[in-house]
Amino acid sequence: VRGTQTHSGKTRGDGELALLSEIRARAVRGSRHGGLRLGIGDDCALLAPRRGEELAVTTDLSIDGRHFRLDWHQPEAIGHRALARGLSDLAAMGARPVAAFLSLGLPRELTTASGGRGGQRTGSRAWVQRFLDGLLALAEAHQTPLAGGDLAESSLAVADIVLVGVVPRGRALLRSGAQPGELLYVTGALGGAAAGLARLAELAGLDRSNPPRIPKKLEALLAPHLYPQPRIAQGLWLQRRGLASAALDLSDGLSTDLAHLCAESGVAAEVDASALPIHPTATLAQALDGGEDYELLFTAPATARLPRSIAGVAVTKIGRIVKARRGQPAITLITEQAAQPLKARGWEHFS
Amino acid sequence: VRGTQTHSGKTRGDGELALLSEIRARAVRGSRHGGLRLGIGDDCALLAPRRGEELAVTTDLSIDGRHFRLDWHQPEAIGHRALARGLSDLAAMGARPVAAFLSLGLPRELTTASGGRGGQRTGSRAWVQRFLDGLLALAEAHQTPLAGGDLAESSLAVADIVLVGVVPRGRALLRSGAQPGELLYVTGALGGAAAGLARLAELAGLDRSNPPRIPKKLEALLAPHLYPQPRIAQGLWLQRRGLASAALDLSDGLSTDLAHLCAESGVAAEVDASALPIHPTATLAQALDGGEDYELLFTAPATARLPRSIAGVAVTKIGRIVKARRGQPAITLITEQAAQPLKARGWEHFS
Repeated sequence: VRGTQTHSGKTRGDGELALLSEIRARAVRGSRHGGLRLGIGDDCALLAPRRGEELAVTTDLSIDGRHFRLDWHQPEAIGHRALARGLSDLAAMGARPVAAFLSLGLPRELTTASGGRGGQRTGSRAWVQRFLDGLLALAEAHQTPLAGGDLAESSLAVADIVLVGVVPRGRALLRSGAQPGELLYVTGALGGAAAGLARLAELAGLDRSNPPRIPKKLEALLAPHLYPQPRIAQGLWLQRRGLASAALDLSDGLSTDLAHLCAESGVAAEVDASALPIHPTATLAQALDGGEDYELLFTAPATARLPRSIAGVAVTKIGRIVKARRGQPAITLITEQAAQPLKARGWEHFS
Repeated sequence: VRGTQTHSGKTRGDGELALLSEIRARAVRGSRHGGLRLGIGDDCALLAPRRGEELAVTTDLSIDGRHFRLDWHQPEAIGHRALARGLSDLAAMGARPVAAFLSLGLPRELTTASGGRGGQRTGSRAWVQRFLDGLLALAEAHQTPLAGGDLAESSLAVADIVLVGVVPRGRALLRSGAQPGELLYVTGALGGAAAGLARLAELAGLDRSNPPRIPKKLEALLAPHLYPQPRIAQGLWLQRRGLASAALDLSDGLSTDLAHLCAESGVAAEVDASALPIHPTATLAQALDGGEDYELLFTAPATARLPRSIAGVAVTKIGRIVKARRGQPAITLITEQAAQPLKARGWEHFS
């Protein structure tokens, strides 16, 4: 987040300059970690990977009305979720995060303490400060300094997150390595984020607050949606042991993301419905098609011995990789009654 | 630009899928350059820097109405300018570009051939294809493959560009290295972009087309604004010879950017008005305060021998670095008549 990149006309307002200073000060606090040599304040950040390391880079765009809603989500959750998307991509490669970058376009009222939109309760702090609270708390949990970015006034709230990670050369977990005969695994539980979002939509319809208050007893229910946990430790574990032949993160839902893995690997897959680790709050449909669980989906040879959990998160065998056959569905869902094609059907958010 | 990152509800439309395929196909064509090991198609791109290299990373957000206007700028120019901003940041560090990433949020009508907004003449190709034409032509000129990004539907057109470059460890040109007694240099000419933008604004007021047609005879006049040239070769030249003690790129205008250099280096500066390489179409005010020239501003010891031009672009001595004194202005403009404080006054765009 440099001071030089607004083309807002004239010089920046006092509020914007103060925001830049605050971001810089808060970002520096967390930047003693390996790899980042120069953070916010110059034309670029500088990263110094160690010998034999390669860099994994990913960008994820979050837009009001598409990936979040200002009238549904607390600012802390929006910040957390924006960063979680990028961290989850690193996890899927088995990479260790080194630095994050944030390009932020915000309506002016979200950068001032008195602001907030449509009666949003932002308290005495600006919306953007609470957004940063959420983002930086997750960054700190994963020892990921905020190393730069950009800031501009925008009529629509947008946040583009860039994550840079390191992985030993040639060891990254790719989507393209799955082979017929291998087994299919998933971390954690599926469908919890979709179930949480459905509940949040209900709350938003009932509560006149904007965003709605989350009753204490619902916090745990909404957590998979509001505060998804990127599986960095699990991705690193798989990468270091060389057990996974292919991996990706479940951002769009099992039915869609497994189709990507199959396409990149040139294989097909069978999923056992009875084996799916469905989140206790979720339906089978949410587990199959619900997006944003940010669990890892990976394949491993049948001979590989995988633990029941990695760093406290369950690992479940949910199916197998088979040969792709022309005219046959890429994914088959096997239930006790029948085997049926599983169509990619990413979960519907804010249509 | 992965296929998995829309949360638009349901699966992507055919047009969006086609766009993803096109970006991937066009991006791959340009990606045989050193450093990028894995491009579009996985959760992250993979970059393999050579031993002794460090990575420079920068992000630049471009938003309709702030950094460009759909009703003023041809899509090719918007694509070119978005990438030029990021490349210019690498130039300012003396880094060689290795990969670009593009996060793109676009209204649906800009992704379809029949679309265009408010009567925009997009011809038989979609706005986004022409945007990519401009972006990828500049990327190719600088041998910079498009390695990834994100894509989403958005009510406001936004493009966040990420550039990754490499520079030998410890050799990057920083803003913080200027010392009292050193001389101040600038590449190229100043104010041409501001003058071109002023002319474009006139045209937009006269021409009913949207964006306005650029008459052949005005193309050269508008080029510094529409197609700025990032000074990659000049930044590399300075870095390799170790001649520059500090550098940055002129994105917000000399008066603003020189203030940043002074602040980061803890020095002050004197600028000789008569020495300024004012673009033939520009005024002194445009040369001092006009943004987006994307020339390099750098300092060098008085003993350094600098050529009159680097790779065909003029190098001009415009002043000197002096000690910062409490209560004194950071920048003094010296004319034949007097010495006066030069205030940071970034040029007004689309207020």
